[in-house]
Amino acid sequence: MKIGILGPEGTFSETAAVLWLKGRRGGTIEHVELNYYETIVDVAESIVRKEVDYGIVPIENSLEGSVGETLDLLSSENNEGGMRIVGEILVPIRICLLAKQPLGKFDQNASQSFARIRKVVSHPHALAQCKQFIRERLKVKGVEVKPVESTAGAAKMAMEDEEVAALASEEAAKRYKLKILAEDVQDKESVTRFVALSSSFSSSDIETSPTGKDKTSLLLYLKDRPGALYEVLGEFAQRGINLTKIESRPSKRALGDYMFHIDCEGHLEEKEIKEVLEGVKRKVAMLKVLGSYPMAR
Amino acid sequence: MKIGILGPEGTFSETAAVLWLKGRRGGTIEHVELNYYETIVDVAESIVRKEVDYGIVPIENSLEGSVGETLDLLSSENNEGGMRIVGEILVPIRICLLAKQPLGKFDQNASQSFARIRKVVSHPHALAQCKQFIRERLKVKGVEVKPVESTAGAAKMAMEDEEVAALASEEAAKRYKLKILAEDVQDKESVTRFVALSSSFSSSDIETSPTGKDKTSLLLYLKDRPGALYEVLGEFAQRGINLTKIESRPSKRALGDYMFHIDCEGHLEEKEIKEVLEGVKRKVAMLKVLGSYPMAR
Repeated sequence: MKIGILGPEGTFSETAAVLWLKGRRGGTIEHVELNYYETIVDVAESIVRKEVDYGIVPIENSLEGSVGETLDLLSSENNEGGMRIVGEILVPIRICLLAKQPLGKFDQNASQSFARIRKVVSHPHALAQCKQFIRERLKVKGVEVKPVESTAGAAKMAMEDEEVAALASEEAAKRYKLKILAEDVQDKESVTRFVALSSSFSSSDIETSPTGKDKTSLLLYLKDRPGALYEVLGEFAQRGINLTKIESRPSKRALGDYMFHIDCEGHLEEKEIKEVLEGVKRKVAMLKVLGSYPMAR
Repeated sequence: MKIGILGPEGTFSETAAVLWLKGRRGGTIEHVELNYYETIVDVAESIVRKEVDYGIVPIENSLEGSVGETLDLLSSENNEGGMRIVGEILVPIRICLLAKQPLGKFDQNASQSFARIRKVVSHPHALAQCKQFIRERLKVKGVEVKPVESTAGAAKMAMEDEEVAALASEEAAKRYKLKILAEDVQDKESVTRFVALSSSFSSSDIETSPTGKDKTSLLLYLKDRPGALYEVLGEFAQRGINLTKIESRPSKRALGDYMFHIDCEGHLEEKEIKEVLEGVKRKVAMLKVLGSYPMAR
């Protein structure tokens, strides 16, 4: 089985892929190959081209909000390949400060290595999430801060230059044989929700059958009249169905024209959800079911 | 009057500030000073510290969606200084390819200058919006693409190096005396909505009184129960009040816990809006009115 994720090796997407494989139904997998891509769009294209069986991409972070790029590639215009969501994975984002351990020195402790750092690199999001640590522990010492493509890419740079430290995952430390100089340096704990995507025709039925604790993701485009969203939400409220998320995204037609991404509790094959979808369909200009999948804990 | 915007000189924020001043009510202003800041948060802080009378920041783009940083600084936790929205401005985003005109050459035409470019720089958003142009016209010639802090910062770099081209505004071309090698190079037209912010106590009444065509911005935190959003939207729907925007943002407490930003038509001082707000207040855990202001056309 091939899985497409954001590369290089050691990103939080890789952590998500490993977690997803552990919890996955449908029997043991003999051989798993991870394919690394540069962007979320590249991962999606690899699914549509059937270069991979699944793609795993971030969709939402508890501090930063939705990942627009992922929501947009599920929109009907961009999703002619018919990708659907077959799973979700929650990954706690714990960021570490990593650097290479200098050669030829023994008894090198963390605080000493700390003093040698001239530059700290990471993905802009990780830099944003570690603002306080950077200001109080690095900037005061004149350390230069530089945004790069990914946290794992940052770790790679740290591997090549002893004066460069990276803000990246524990996994990246292992992967690039770096020393963890400081752990949990993010300002605030956060969790990133990833989704597993597949092209409609390649998944087995076992994988997508109801578990009793599922979520269904919908994409809809409202009719242009006051109260349109209210009426749609009524279909859920009247049946006591809980929405776990509602998010507007630009339709890209005009400013103020939106699509809505809605996640609700329940499975597509359950009677109540079927009824809701029938009701919603009558009230919107476009409804697309992106998938039903087991709720992550 | 002092206005805080994103710098350096020649950003789209500056275009927004100029447009806002033109349309502004409350009499002619003798002297306007623009103060430039590096980040949206810096602009907000300058308002709270009363370093500036107003701040103008981007809040939404018709392709990219909301600017999370701006929504978040209006949330109650971050907005203890009591900033409110006093105006909105729509700026069409037209991106040009700019470069320095080489000295000592006459009859230099655009296509020749084009050939001399080794590197193209811009803000990551502008690079994302010009993907097609970059791929078809620049990357094929081996031009290196590099993200920088701002479009205007990119123009500044182009001014200093003849082999560097910037993707930036027409205003930036004027400001940095650069030649426009290509106009409207974005993949798709887009519009950015900016808001003018002020600290609550410094605005005149004329400025915030109803015009008959206004918008009101609200921030609310729902009670945790199914149907909570539905009930709130009912207050608007029952009175036929149009929502122009609804956007969820992470509350930053836990994944799946959201605040809602809602914009509706109407003014805080109008009877109907007062009634809606009374109704909404009874149904939510927290309601904050961010301001009423004339709708931009």
